[in-house]
Parts: sequence; C-alpha cells; structure tokens
Amino acid sequence: MQRMMGTLLIAFVLGVVLGKLLLPVLHRLKFGQNIYELAPEAHKKKQGTPIMGGLVFAGAFIIAALLMNDYSMPVWQNMTLAMMLMALGNMFIGFADDMTKIRRGKNGGLTPKQKMFFQTILALAFSLYCYFHPQVGSVIEIPFLRTQLDLGILYVPIMMFIIVGTTNSANLLDGLDGLLTSVSIVDFAALSVLAAVAGLSGLGVGCAALCGGLMGFLIYNVNPAKMFMGDTGSMFIGGAVVAAAMMLRQPLILVLIAFWMFMSTLSVIIQVTYFKKTGGKRIFKMSPIHHHFELCGMSEVRIVAMYMMTTAVLCIITLMGIL
Amino acid sequence: MQRMMGTLLIAFVLGVVLGKLLLPVLHRLKFGQNIYELAPEAHKKKQGTPIMGGLVFAGAFIIAALLMNDYSMPVWQNMTLAMMLMALGNMFIGFADDMTKIRRGKNGGLTPKQKMFFQTILALAFSLYCYFHPQVGSVIEIPFLRTQLDLGILYVPIMMFIIVGTTNSANLLDGLDGLLTSVSIVDFAALSVLAAVAGLSGLGVGCAALCGGLMGFLIYNVNPAKMFMGDTGSMFIGGAVVAAAMMLRQPLILVLIAFWMFMSTLSVIIQVTYFKKTGGKRIFKMSPIHHHFELCGMSEVRIVAMYMMTTAVLCIITLMGIL
Repeated sequence: MQRMMGTLLIAFVLGVVLGKLLLPVLHRLKFGQNIYELAPEAHKKKQGTPIMGGLVFAGAFIIAALLMNDYSMPVWQNMTLAMMLMALGNMFIGFADDMTKIRRGKNGGLTPKQKMFFQTILALAFSLYCYFHPQVGSVIEIPFLRTQLDLGILYVPIMMFIIVGTTNSANLLDGLDGLLTSVSIVDFAALSVLAAVAGLSGLGVGCAALCGGLMGFLIYNVNPAKMFMGDTGSMFIGGAVVAAAMMLRQPLILVLIAFWMFMSTLSVIIQVTYFKKTGGKRIFKMSPIHHHFELCGMSEVRIVAMYMMTTAVLCIITLMGIL
Repeated sequence: MQRMMGTLLIAFVLGVVLGKLLLPVLHRLKFGQNIYELAPEAHKKKQGTPIMGGLVFAGAFIIAALLMNDYSMPVWQNMTLAMMLMALGNMFIGFADDMTKIRRGKNGGLTPKQKMFFQTILALAFSLYCYFHPQVGSVIEIPFLRTQLDLGILYVPIMMFIIVGTTNSANLLDGLDGLLTSVSIVDFAALSVLAAVAGLSGLGVGCAALCGGLMGFLIYNVNPAKMFMGDTGSMFIGGAVVAAAMMLRQPLILVLIAFWMFMSTLSVIIQVTYFKKTGGKRIFKMSPIHHHFELCGMSEVRIVAMYMMTTAVLCIITLMGIL
C-alpha cells in the first residue's frame, strides 16, 4: 500500500509539472482542436484549445510506474508493463486520429478500416497475452456470486470484443471538459484497491500511477479546459482500464466501473438505430448521452459531478461485490 | 467495511432525494443568499441562490448514520452519535448566522460575542467528552513518528482551540461553488478508512454517511450552484471533521486533511495583520486565498479541482503516515 500511495504522489507531481511544460508547446505547435461541427453550440468557444493533453498523464504514468515498478518477476509477466504497452498501443491509434483532426482531414491518419484493423490486432495480442499469463488465464471471476467461470479458448474472442468496445467507449465519453478525466480518476483508484486486495501489488502500482497522473492533469482539463486529452488520451485510458480489469480476472466489473463509457456507446447505438427505423426521429436530443443532458439544460460541470459521483458509487458497489 | 460502504450508498441516495425535495422549498421560503458586497464582481450573479442547502447532507447523514449505526456499546460512548451532536451543535450556530443574512441584518441572530460564547461552550463540552471517553482520553497519536503524546488535562484547552479554529476555518473555506463540499468528500472518505483501520467501525459508519450525503449534495452545489450549504452546512462540516479526528486520537492530521480550511484562516490573518501594519497594503488580492486565486484569473471550477486533488494527495500522505 505504501508503495502504491508513493507512486500516486510521484505521478501527481509529474502530471502537474508535465502539464505546465507541455501547455505552451502544444499551443506553439498549433495542436488546436477543430470542434466537431455538430457539437452543441456552446462548444464553439472551445475552438483552438490544444489536444493531445493525454501525453501529460501518459508521461506521468510511464515515468512513475517505471520508477516504482516491482521487477522481481519475469519481465513478460510484469502486469504494469503489459498495461502500459496495451495503453500505448491504443494511444498510437488515437494519436493518428488526432493528427487527422489537426490537419483538418487533409492527409488523414488512419481510415476507419485501418483503425479497426489495428484495434483488432492489438485486442488479439492482449487477449492471448492474458490467456497465457500464469496469473490470469481463461478463468474470470463473477463478482457478487463470488464464483468463477472458465471460458476456455472462448476467452480470446470474448475479451477481444470487450477490449474494442471499452476503448472506443472511453473515446466517446471524452466529450465534456474534465469528464473522462474525473471518471477515470475514480476508476483507477478503485482498480488500485482491487489490485492490492488481490495481492497484485505490481498492477496496483500501475493503476495508482495512472490515477495520480490523471489527478494532476485534471487541474488543466476542468472547465474551461486549457487542454483536451484528445483521442491520444482517451484511447490510452480505455486501453489501460480494460487491461487492468482483465489482469484482475474481473472483466465483468467494467459494466459497473466503466458504466458511463458503455452508456455513451449504447446511447449512440440506440439513437442511430431509432433514427434509421423511424426515418428521422430521435430519442435523445443528441448522443452520446452527456450531450443530451447538456441540451436539457444541465451545466457541463454539473454533468461531470454527476458522472464522477455516480461512478464512485458504482465503484463502491463493485468493491462490495468483491471484497 | 461492507457496513460502511452500504451506509455511504444509502446516504448518497438520500442526499440526491433530499436535494430534489428541499430545493423548491428553500426557493419558496426565499432563503436566498445576499452576496457579500466585497466578494469578487463575478459573484454578484449568485444573488438569490438559496442557502441552508447544508440541511441536505446533514439530513442524509443523520438518517443513514442512525439506520446503520452499531448500538452495541453504551449510548454515551457511541462515537457516531457524539459526532452527530457536535456537528448539530455547530450547525445551530451557523443556522443563526444564516437567518441573519436572510433578514439582511435586521433582527440579527447572534452577535459575534454570543456566537463565540456558544462555540466555546460547545468546544469545552466536546473536549471533556473525549477526555473521559474510554477509547479516546488525553493521549493523542503523532503520525509519521508513530508515537503517542499524553497531554494530560492540557488536552481540554488545546482541543478547544483546535475545535473553534477548525469550525471557523471550514466556514471560511465555503466561498466558491462546490469548494468545501468537494474537499469534505475527500476528507470523510479518508476519515472512514482511518476509522476502519483503527477498528472504530462505528465512527467509520458516521464518516461514510457524511461522505455519501456530501456526494449527493455536490450535484446541486457545483458551479453554477443551485443551492449553497450556508453557514448551516459549513459549521456542520467543521464540527464533524474535528470530532472525527479527535475521536480517532488524531487531531494533528487536521493540518493535512483540513489544510485548505486552515489556509483560508491563515490567509485572512496574514492579510489583516499586514494591512494594519503597513497602513493599507495588501499581500493577497483578496482573502480568503481562494478569492486571491480567482482574481489571479483561475476559473472557479479550476480552483475547486486544485483544492480537491491536493486534498486527496494530502489525505494519502496522511494515510502513509498512519497505516
């Protein structure tokens, strides 16, 4: 626990410092966001806010986690390194998307097909990694029932689906200042506790490092955001959260701790399906659902508080179902 | 732990429900805040926002804590009840202040002298209570050094000073939308953990109940606030936080977990002293120091995020010094 808490502190300080250093650089490089044309009117003023702020917490996480990592087990089994590689792999896919935005679509990074291809490859690689990891394998825990389920070789395709779903959902949730950051701080705090309880203190150090890095980043990312995390950041978070849950053998808790990520995706799917079926009618004023709340008159900050507090409650329910 | 987590969930739901119910009532009673004339210009638009929202989390805390309390020990030794009475006692002093504000100074509640008198009586009573409580007494823990110090009968005057200082400091920190609420959520989460570790699960239930109630209240209290907690709320929080720390025999951790409360007071003292000594010069643009940050151009929400995240870091340092 002391090591985890120390890691969090180091990562927080690094996050604050890296944010301070990176902010002018991102401005100089003109890495400004071109706000999505269809976003709510109030978002227009965000034009020009630099993206790729995700590099702040990614950097803080990597430095703190490498410093405080436990290197006693074989390198290939090191869970923090595995989580890091998974997050970085997804980050590069997000990075390509960000570059596309910066260049206003000219000379776009990845086509949707290429993106899906790389995501699938990454998901396959990580699922196989877990499948063969002596502390993970094909058995998953069922929270609340306190039982286990051996998925056998089906583990790989099921987890691939969960990985691609989670990373893209994290990406969709990143739509309001500080939203994904606040929710993720709570998630990684809960994952740190779960890792410590499961005796996986190595993984706990990784989760604590990301929690701390995000806490530092939040100060720049809250409304009005000085920088956005960009797809670079949201894909990084998505990769890290699913990796941590899988290595805990607890992929099912994602339904609770990543609730708002999945609700974002679900609301888009419902909206699009309904729109097509009815020939033009909408269920939500806008999707993902945080934009719906916004157009219903809730302030951006109130939505963030609501998402953060309900995520904390869902994390506590998760802990109650596992501890 | 399960009991504490369950209490937090109940209190959160109660906080959300009570907030919903109380908001129209407070509006109808015209319990609107008259914004302090000397507050930063941007605060003028807050005129009319109802105060006494503190009743929301006080109510949620009381119901949840009474429901989930452990009644196995003699009633007078029950720590959650003691914390509740201390918080309520302070709340009534704050309530009198709020009534003064609502009536625009006409027919004022308490004079400063009367207020100080009641605070002193309350502080004396609670210090004596702890002094004679078999699980508390005159011994306090020294964190980090992991040693103890027996203050003897000096315990009473020293604690009286700490109590009056903390409650008034909490009152000063309540100056921006969601500021004291966010900081207190983190504080009571940390205090719950400390209580559980110290084997005082009864006290843990009380801390968890207040944490949950505040989490529900935050949704109404974030910028732009739909209601303020008022002195009713801030004095309640101040009383509860100092009571919990004292019953844990850890009054010294208040320096860390209540850091921003004390910084608020300290900045006022420094400002006033310097102003008098120099015959009119100011160190801060305005005190308490959160208004200084505000006038330096930080957004209200960014200050809240900074205070909340640094408080979380200080709570983790506290845990490192005790666990």
